[in-house]
Amino acid sequence: MDQRVSLITLGVDDVARSKAFYEGLGWRGQEVEQTVFFQAGSMAVVLWGRDKLADDAGMSADGPRGFAGIALAQNVRSRDEVDRVMAAARNCGGTVTRAAAETFYGGYAGYFADPDGHLWEVAHNPGFTLAEDGALVLPDFGEQD
Amino acid sequence: MDQRVSLITLGVDDVARSKAFYEGLGWRGQEVEQTVFFQAGSMAVVLWGRDKLADDAGMSADGPRGFAGIALAQNVRSRDEVDRVMAAARNCGGTVTRAAAETFYGGYAGYFADPDGHLWEVAHNPGFTLAEDGALVLPDFGEQD
Repeated sequence: MDQRVSLITLGVDDVARSKAFYEGLGWRGQEVEQTVFFQAGSMAVVLWGRDKLADDAGMSADGPRGFAGIALAQNVRSRDEVDRVMAAARNCGGTVTRAAAETFYGGYAGYFADPDGHLWEVAHNPGFTLAEDGALVLPDFGEQD
Repeated sequence: MDQRVSLITLGVDDVARSKAFYEGLGWRGQEVEQTVFFQAGSMAVVLWGRDKLADDAGMSADGPRGFAGIALAQNVRSRDEVDRVMAAARNCGGTVTRAAAETFYGGYAGYFADPDGHLWEVAHNPGFTLAEDGALVLPDFGEQD
């Protein structure tokens, strides 16, 4: 299996509400058949009805909500940018689950949940390089396993 | 907010078990302080303790399991490759939640769950271009919104 991700599909209760949230954050996508596709660098983020996604995946959509055990993250170039993105998320109807603060690795990060509870971390991590196009480049941790 | 994802962190019950699963699929990463980082194209996939991730995100790890409302996907270049990846996932201890089959959009796809229930779709979609490096390029759906 190649070591890459092509799409992240977020199951949402109301595609219009969710689309408005991400558009409020400045994202622009294409909607086709009640599905919204956002090109995100070399991959795509997709908004799709939670019921449809569950059905497509052979799962029951009745699964209880709560901590889903997964988080997306966007690394940014400064602490100010963390604050700006967190404020934008709150202004667009997101829920701040952890206010931005110093992190154990010497960075600065906060988390918000989108209207369906999908978690996003917004982080400034001086140890992770961001290429000019925003691509993340992991450091050599010096403990290759 | 830039239109990109830097990391996907999967909260796992047993980092060693989860690492073995992804290594079984052929992935290679770096482990540091009980956290596994896989460079995945221009982003990274991270395995981290579910409790730690919940705490970091200001959430309760006690949240019930079930359908998390999110799925990762990897698009591949042929139906045969879908079958090969699905078989590898099953052989490594993954759970097939939907066997690979024809899709409504003229493709071929299946889903598996990793040891913690994180859903992966493996898809061949002739309508989505894969660049030489595996980067996904969304088509122009002709219904820009």
